[in-house]
Amino acid sequence: MSLARNGYKVGLYEGRPDSRKTCIYQGKSIDIALSDRGWNSLERIGVRSDIKTHAVPMSHRAIHSVHGEVSILPYGREGDAIWSVSRGGINDQLLDFADDEANITTYFGHRLADIDFETSTTTFKVANGTELVVESDFVFGADGANSKVRRLAQSLPRVSYSKTYMQQCYIELNIPANADGTHQLDKNALHIWPRNDLMLIALPNSDGTFTCTLFLNFSGEPSFESLREPQAVETFFATYFADALPYLDNPVDSFMAKTAAPLFLVQVFPWSFNNKVGLIGDAAHAIVPFYGQGMNCGFEDCAELDALIGLYEHDWDQIVPVYEKSRKENADAIAELSKRNFAEMSHLSGDPKFQLRKRIEAKFSNQFPSLWTPLYSMVTFSPDVMYSDALRIGDRQERIMEQIMSLPNIEDDWDKQIIMDQLLCFASAEFGDKS
Amino acid sequence: MSLARNGYKVGLYEGRPDSRKTCIYQGKSIDIALSDRGWNSLERIGVRSDIKTHAVPMSHRAIHSVHGEVSILPYGREGDAIWSVSRGGINDQLLDFADDEANITTYFGHRLADIDFETSTTTFKVANGTELVVESDFVFGADGANSKVRRLAQSLPRVSYSKTYMQQCYIELNIPANADGTHQLDKNALHIWPRNDLMLIALPNSDGTFTCTLFLNFSGEPSFESLREPQAVETFFATYFADALPYLDNPVDSFMAKTAAPLFLVQVFPWSFNNKVGLIGDAAHAIVPFYGQGMNCGFEDCAELDALIGLYEHDWDQIVPVYEKSRKENADAIAELSKRNFAEMSHLSGDPKFQLRKRIEAKFSNQFPSLWTPLYSMVTFSPDVMYSDALRIGDRQERIMEQIMSLPNIEDDWDKQIIMDQLLCFASAEFGDKS
Repeated sequence: MSLARNGYKVGLYEGRPDSRKTCIYQGKSIDIALSDRGWNSLERIGVRSDIKTHAVPMSHRAIHSVHGEVSILPYGREGDAIWSVSRGGINDQLLDFADDEANITTYFGHRLADIDFETSTTTFKVANGTELVVESDFVFGADGANSKVRRLAQSLPRVSYSKTYMQQCYIELNIPANADGTHQLDKNALHIWPRNDLMLIALPNSDGTFTCTLFLNFSGEPSFESLREPQAVETFFATYFADALPYLDNPVDSFMAKTAAPLFLVQVFPWSFNNKVGLIGDAAHAIVPFYGQGMNCGFEDCAELDALIGLYEHDWDQIVPVYEKSRKENADAIAELSKRNFAEMSHLSGDPKFQLRKRIEAKFSNQFPSLWTPLYSMVTFSPDVMYSDALRIGDRQERIMEQIMSLPNIEDDWDKQIIMDQLLCFASAEFGDKS
Repeated sequence: MSLARNGYKVGLYEGRPDSRKTCIYQGKSIDIALSDRGWNSLERIGVRSDIKTHAVPMSHRAIHSVHGEVSILPYGREGDAIWSVSRGGINDQLLDFADDEANITTYFGHRLADIDFETSTTTFKVANGTELVVESDFVFGADGANSKVRRLAQSLPRVSYSKTYMQQCYIELNIPANADGTHQLDKNALHIWPRNDLMLIALPNSDGTFTCTLFLNFSGEPSFESLREPQAVETFFATYFADALPYLDNPVDSFMAKTAAPLFLVQVFPWSFNNKVGLIGDAAHAIVPFYGQGMNCGFEDCAELDALIGLYEHDWDQIVPVYEKSRKENADAIAELSKRNFAEMSHLSGDPKFQLRKRIEAKFSNQFPSLWTPLYSMVTFSPDVMYSDALRIGDRQERIMEQIMSLPNIEDDWDKQIIMDQLLCFASAEFGDKS
């Protein structure tokens, strides 16, 4: 869209049919989280408020212990929230916006068959079986985690590539709305049932339902592989998620019927080839969903490109190398953070010591906002801080908080001034103005 | 070989002809470094002393500055050395040893076509064009960095894989022997001409020659891509390697004639499939040559397997998962170290501050051997320290040495007792007996 606004004629080629006319998201109703980076990018193309209409704000985590107690842990400061949007919904809205752009023409049912990376000539297989050859100045592969553009590029010399699977796979479950259309659980929370190697989460939808995701090891005990019988699955839910069972819609049948989907990260370099073909979004950097940043990072790619087009006055020989370098570094950082956050959500978030640490950080950050923004807030609510800086600063904060948390009697003393003073001493030495 | 010694009937299938009858190493005369891990593994199968006959010990680095000064930096303590062996030579020797084993049958010209990963049934294309189907209990893919076994395994579900190219590529050059068969340069050194992003090294051969490797960026300035004319290549050598020029055999012609080979790392997981097929050596973990550990790590895989066969009394259901877990962790560690060591060799080794740091560490390690073994020595001369532990300990040493090197006047004071005392204080706190 920003390409079109910058005066380029854009052809948008999609292999699947138009999702607004044909349902293509079966089993992929997965909700996605939008936060400040995403909103800023959408603002650049003027669609922020339209998208926000259908989004549900989540201001805090609701952490459900195995005994059914619920702890509330805010995501940021008062007023901060991450937003739940439906994958299909936002896609359809963006397609509507694209239809309104004179410079964008959209072609559905055009499946990419080949690219000439020297000339950016592309060949598409059209639904009726014919082939279409398209010439253009530049091709962006925005074709997602399993990008065909990227797979074709892998046969070029010296293309580095990695695909890393996590032990966990996932299936989606559902919590229906109350009869009156209201939510059965706190609708302004992202609900987490953290159980170490496995975890259930629930994100609110605007229609009163929750979309839940169960993350569970592929093999081992318990796992998607080991849970083969309905009876065993029932016992599994009763053991780990007793307090969620009254809300879930037929979890045992859903578990038996669904195929667990893998979780993987993709990294690749370069992101551009002969200054004729480039990668963007998940095609360049598929990550795991545990930081809620996948879509935000993809949107930020677009915003960065938009900014560079202005900065370098449409000189693509300058734009592309800078885009590639700056976004690659940031995409690698959020990939690392997204991996780490599985442990944080599934293991640590259930740990009282971890929750205490978050409270100490929040209190300190409120007192000294210029010295300390918690890592989660840097990533989620501070779009001016690059992911790569957030990762670096977060690692330095981690070392300081380890020292704080190892102070004797921290559980009793955490709210006392002496702890804030100690933290101020460490943080000033590490982050204070050195001038 | 250790499989055969453990009583297994081993079929060794090689796609190429017998290297002892047909020259197959054109352009791949690259010397490889053997050190204590490799020697220990060779000792397990009783061939250490035979291999050592043809190896040349290198006890120190000889670092050639751009002005022609040479600094000597020992690799370890008195008596420690890494050994230069020729790739073709050791392969041929090992094939001779295999011929002597009743349990090993070797088949040359058998190119792997397919594997059934459920049954470990393998299909080979034989030189005359026919196909051969082989049944076995277990197949090891020991087929190197471009392993066909691994490539076939990548189509299985949930196989993580990465291939990472370095910016540098390489070509081999040669320094001939003197007329009387002696070496033109110090023969007990690994010679390094470190020039930041590029580097020349020379390893001694037992025939008086040196095999040299030029590492240079693929693109940019200067690079294999930018140096297209003999005149430019001559200027390049004169600029960066003036003191090596009198020794090198026709470097400009060689440069022009040779195709630069890429440098890459491969990581994969799992290393075993259905307990029927496994990966070993470079097929499981191709690394870059900068720590001189590629062959050592592969030999260590064999030694570990040998040890586990004994420990678990031939129960492969236990052997394979333990082999895979323990070696993967160590292979990842040496991969990381091998990447980092390019910067150490090409950039830092020419830096007086870096050389000083090495000297301080060596001195301290001599005084307090139980508190401090330098990282290089842990990796190279301490086969009882796992690569993964060496990496972890090395990172902790790094933080301490950063503090030491930032002491005021360290250049003047480094040899004083106060520096050793300071280092003792830091090292005792970090590594001392905590009981």
